[in-house]
Amino acid sequence: MNHQQALTKYIASFVAELIHAGVKDVVVSPGSRSTPIAMIMAEHPDLRLHIHVDERSAAFFALGMAKASRNPTVLLCTSGTAAANYFPAIAEANLSRVPLLVITADRPHELRDVGAPQAMDQVNLYGKHVKWFIEMSHPEGSKEMLRYARTVAGRAVATALSSPAGPVHLNFPLREPLVPDLTSENIFIMPEREKGYVHIEQGRLALNENQLRSIANELNEHKNGLIVCGEIDHPTFANAITMLAAKLQYPIIADPLSQLRSGNHEFVHIIESYDTFLRNDDAVSHLAPDVIIRFGAMPISKAFSLFMKKNEQVPQFVVDGGEGWRDPSLLTTNMVYCDEVEFCESLLPLLKENQDTLFLEKWQQMNEITKAALFRVKENESLSESRLFYELVELLPDGATLFVGNSMPIRDVDTFFFNNQKSIRIMANRGANGIDGVISSALGAGTVHKPMYLVLGDLTFFHDLNGLIASKLYHIDLSVIVLNNNGGGIFSFLPQASHPQHFERLFGTPLDLDFEPAVSMYGGTFSRVSTWMELTSSFEQTLAKEGLSVIEVPTKRDENLQEHRNLWDYVSREISRNLRGES
Amino acid sequence: MNHQQALTKYIASFVAELIHAGVKDVVVSPGSRSTPIAMIMAEHPDLRLHIHVDERSAAFFALGMAKASRNPTVLLCTSGTAAANYFPAIAEANLSRVPLLVITADRPHELRDVGAPQAMDQVNLYGKHVKWFIEMSHPEGSKEMLRYARTVAGRAVATALSSPAGPVHLNFPLREPLVPDLTSENIFIMPEREKGYVHIEQGRLALNENQLRSIANELNEHKNGLIVCGEIDHPTFANAITMLAAKLQYPIIADPLSQLRSGNHEFVHIIESYDTFLRNDDAVSHLAPDVIIRFGAMPISKAFSLFMKKNEQVPQFVVDGGEGWRDPSLLTTNMVYCDEVEFCESLLPLLKENQDTLFLEKWQQMNEITKAALFRVKENESLSESRLFYELVELLPDGATLFVGNSMPIRDVDTFFFNNQKSIRIMANRGANGIDGVISSALGAGTVHKPMYLVLGDLTFFHDLNGLIASKLYHIDLSVIVLNNNGGGIFSFLPQASHPQHFERLFGTPLDLDFEPAVSMYGGTFSRVSTWMELTSSFEQTLAKEGLSVIEVPTKRDENLQEHRNLWDYVSREISRNLRGES
Repeated sequence: MNHQQALTKYIASFVAELIHAGVKDVVVSPGSRSTPIAMIMAEHPDLRLHIHVDERSAAFFALGMAKASRNPTVLLCTSGTAAANYFPAIAEANLSRVPLLVITADRPHELRDVGAPQAMDQVNLYGKHVKWFIEMSHPEGSKEMLRYARTVAGRAVATALSSPAGPVHLNFPLREPLVPDLTSENIFIMPEREKGYVHIEQGRLALNENQLRSIANELNEHKNGLIVCGEIDHPTFANAITMLAAKLQYPIIADPLSQLRSGNHEFVHIIESYDTFLRNDDAVSHLAPDVIIRFGAMPISKAFSLFMKKNEQVPQFVVDGGEGWRDPSLLTTNMVYCDEVEFCESLLPLLKENQDTLFLEKWQQMNEITKAALFRVKENESLSESRLFYELVELLPDGATLFVGNSMPIRDVDTFFFNNQKSIRIMANRGANGIDGVISSALGAGTVHKPMYLVLGDLTFFHDLNGLIASKLYHIDLSVIVLNNNGGGIFSFLPQASHPQHFERLFGTPLDLDFEPAVSMYGGTFSRVSTWMELTSSFEQTLAKEGLSVIEVPTKRDENLQEHRNLWDYVSREISRNLRGES
Repeated sequence: MNHQQALTKYIASFVAELIHAGVKDVVVSPGSRSTPIAMIMAEHPDLRLHIHVDERSAAFFALGMAKASRNPTVLLCTSGTAAANYFPAIAEANLSRVPLLVITADRPHELRDVGAPQAMDQVNLYGKHVKWFIEMSHPEGSKEMLRYARTVAGRAVATALSSPAGPVHLNFPLREPLVPDLTSENIFIMPEREKGYVHIEQGRLALNENQLRSIANELNEHKNGLIVCGEIDHPTFANAITMLAAKLQYPIIADPLSQLRSGNHEFVHIIESYDTFLRNDDAVSHLAPDVIIRFGAMPISKAFSLFMKKNEQVPQFVVDGGEGWRDPSLLTTNMVYCDEVEFCESLLPLLKENQDTLFLEKWQQMNEITKAALFRVKENESLSESRLFYELVELLPDGATLFVGNSMPIRDVDTFFFNNQKSIRIMANRGANGIDGVISSALGAGTVHKPMYLVLGDLTFFHDLNGLIASKLYHIDLSVIVLNNNGGGIFSFLPQASHPQHFERLFGTPLDLDFEPAVSMYGGTFSRVSTWMELTSSFEQTLAKEGLSVIEVPTKRDENLQEHRNLWDYVSREISRNLRGES
C-alpha cells in the first residue's frame, strides 16, 4: 500500500466511523493541509458538508447546529491560525455543554517548530477548553491502524456527547502528497464489521435508594420550597419537573432558557416575572423559601441572584447531571450529581404530597400582580425595547425558535417574555455570554429548526456580520430583529454610566453604521421601522419570506434606560401597595 | 484605603509604568470587567486609546501597529470569549516576533469555574503561544503591591521586546465595584521614583572571538557562497548584510520581506527574481553554491526551498538572534544564535576579500535574463494579477508601505516585485500565513506609516471585513487593491486542481459577493476596474484621497493560472536557450 492509499484508507475509516457513531454534519473551512479529510468527507453520501470561509463564524455555525440538533457537529480546518479562530466557539461550547468535534489538519512532526509555512503548535491548542484532545498518528493503512482510526472516531463522538457534552479536538498530522486516492471502491467499508467498528453505550448518572431517600426526607420536611430552573436542554425535563413541583407544591422559577415558559406542559407552578418583582424588597421578604432545589445553569436574572444571597441560610440542592459546579453565589449545601430527569422521576414516589399551598399561592399572586402591572408596557405607543420583548410571544408563530443575543436582549427576554402555550424554543449562547458569533449560531440552528428568529443588539450584529454569508450561500431562512441603539446599551445600566468623562468613548462606543448595504450584500431584505405598526407589519411579512430578513428597530440608549426604570418603579409601587393590602 | 482606592492605585501604578517602559498605544475592546483598567488608561495623557468592538480585528490592528512601530502595543478586553478572539493574532505575533501586551480582565477566584456569567478559564489561555503569562494578584494598595504592579509592567514590556519579540499575557482578577476613584490627583505618580520604577537594559546576543574566527575561517574557504535573507525586521540590517556580501562576493537571495529589494543601500549583490529562474533545472545546476548563510525567516519561494534541498550537502549557517529553529528543510549544519547585525559587523574584519566573482556573476546574469524575460508580462494589455504585481513598483509612491495578503499576493510580490531605490516597506503576516486579520493589520500599520497600501485577494478581504470599521472611526488612510477572482485562487496551483469532482465546492469556494456596499458602509470609496488604464487612473486618484479607497480588480482563476504557467514556461525557455549559449 503506497502513501496515498494508506492516507485514503486511514481517513476514510475515521470518517466512516464518525457517521456510524451518528455524525451527520460537517462545517469545512477551505485549506490545503486538510485536503485529504475534506475530499474524503465530500465523497461520503451520508454526510452534509457546509463550507464556511471564516473559521470563527464556521465554528459558531457548527455550535448552533449542534445545540439545535443535540448531535455533534464536526468542524474541519487547515493548519495555523485557522484553528485559532475556532477558539471563541469552542470556549462557548465547553461552558454551554454543546457537543462539537473539532478536526484540525497539522504539519507532520518533521515540519513542526521549524519555521514551516502556516504551521504553529496545535497540540493541546485549546487547553482546558475541550473535553478531550488527541494527537492522531500519522496515517497508516495497516489493519491495526485502521482499527485505531475507527476507535478514536467512535470515542470522540461518545465523549463529545456524554454529560456534560462539549468539544473534542483531534489534530491530524498529514504529509504530502495530500490528495487522496478516490478511485478505489468502498473506501469506507470495513467488511468484517459493516455496521460500524465500535458502539458505545452511555449510561446516565443515577442516585441509589439511600441517597434518594435522604433527599426525599429532607424535602418532605419543607413546605416552602422553591424549584429553580436555569438553562437546561433535556427533551423530557419539562414534564419531569412539573410533576415534581405538583407533588411538592413548590413554585418553579423558570429562566427563559429552561424552556419552561413555552410548551404544552402544566404551567400552574411556573413563575416567570420574578426578575421584576424580586427588585422589590417587600416582595423579597414576603417570598422567603425554606429550601431551594436548582437545576441547569444559574438563571440570568441578577434580581434572582441577589434574592438567593439574601436567603443564604436556606438549604440549597443543586442537581447537575454534568457534574459541574454551577454556583457562583457559593450557596450550595448539597451538590447532587445525577441526571436531572432521572432525579425527578426516582424522587417522585418517595415524596409526600405537600398539602400546604400557601407559599405557592404567594408566588403565584406576586407573579400575577407583576404581569398585570407590566401590561403597562403596551401603553407605550412608540417603539421601545421593553415593549418589543413583551410582544414577542404574540409576534412569534407557533413552533418558532428564537435565538437571543447577549447583553440586553437576553435580559429583556427574561424580564418580558412570559408563559405561553405555543411551542417556542429559546436559545442563546450563555456559556460565556459573548457577543461574538451570534448570527452564525442562529444560522446554524436555522438549518435544524424552522422558522428561526434572532433578536440582538447592533454591536452583536456587527461582531458577526461575516456570519450572514451562510444565509446567502445555503439559503437558510432567518428573520433578524436588530435593536440598534448605536452602541453598548447595557453599560447605561452599570455604575460607570455616572462617570460621563470617558463613558461614550469607552462604553457607549457608537459605530454609526447603516447596516442596510451589508444586509443587501448578503442577499437579505432590510427594513428600518420607526413605529409599532411598521414593526408588526414588517414582522408579518417575514413570515411569508424565504432567506434573510432584517428588521432594524432604532432605539435610544438613554430613553431605554429610563423606560426600564420607570416600569420597574411603577411595578414596584404596585407590589408594595398590594402587599400592604391596599386595593 | 478602601477597595476602590486600592484598585485605582494598583491599576494606575501598573499603567504608569507601562508608559515609562515605552508603551504608547492601547487597543481597547469595550466590556464591563475591564472597566477600571480602561478608565484609568483613558485618564493617562500619554497613552493613545483606540477602541475596537471586534476583538479579533482589534488584536490584528494592534499587531499591525506593533509591527510597524517596533514598539509593544497593548490590548485590553473583558473576560470570556472576548479574550479567545485575540488568539489568531497572538499566534501570529508569536511566530512573527511582534511585541504585544495582552491584558485580559477576569473574574476573581471566588467566581471562577462556578458558572458565573461571562467567565471562563483564562489562566494560560494562549498556552505556548505567548512568551510569558502572568496571573496578576488581586489589586491591593500597599506599597509593596504597587511595586509589584510596576515591576510586572516593566518586565512585561521588556519581555515582549526582547529577541525574539512576541506576545505577553497578563490576566487581571477584578472584583466589583469596578469603577475606579478618579477624583484623587496624581494617581500615576510614585513620588520617590518619578521617572519610572524599574528600567531594564537589554543586551544583544554576540559571539566570542573564537566562535567568530571559526566561522570566518570556514567562509574564507568558500568562493561560491550564497547569502539568503528571509523576513527580517532590523533597521540597520540592509547596510550590514550588503557590506558582508561585498566582502564575500556572495549573491544575496532577497525575499521581499527582507526589505532588501527597496531602499538606498547597495544593490549589486541583491538577487530577487530567483523564484522564477530556480524553476528551471538547468539554472539550478548552473548556480549550485558551496556554502549558504541564512538570515531571517525561510524565504517565501517554494522554488528556492526546492533549490536548497537539491544542495543538501552544502554547509548551511543559519543566523538567528531570536534563538529559534527556522529551518523546515532541516538542512542547517551550523545554527548561530547571534544578533544578525552584530554577526555581520563583527565577522567583517575577519573575512578576506573574495577575489573570485565568477559565481556572483552567474547569479547576476541569471537575474538579468529573467527580469528581461519577465518584462513580457507588460505585453499583456488586459488586467492580470502578474502584471499588477510587476507594475506595483512603479505605481507606489516613494515612502509607501505595502501590506500584502497571504496565499497568492505575497507569492506574486515575491515573483514580480523587483529591486528599486524607492523607500518602500513591505509587510505581511508571515508567522502563520493566515488569511485572517489582514485588513486590520494593515490599518494598524497605517496609524504608523503613511501612505499605506494593501493588496489582497477576495477571500482574505472578506475574512476581515469588520476590520474596515477602524478606518471609518479613526480616519485612517488606506488604499486597498482587492484581487477578486471569486474564491481561493491558490488552490488552482495545487494538485487537487486536477480532481474536478469536489474542487469548486471545497477549494474554489466562490462567495459571489459585491463588496461595494460593504465598503460604502464603512465610508470608503470603491471602484471596480476592468482595464489597465482604469487601474492606473484609479490608483493615481487614491494618492490624493484621504480615508479608505478600495480598487477591485476582477480576475479569473483559470486565466491567472494559465498566465503564470505561460510566463514561467517562456522564461524557462529563455534561460535554457541562454545557458546553451544560443543568442
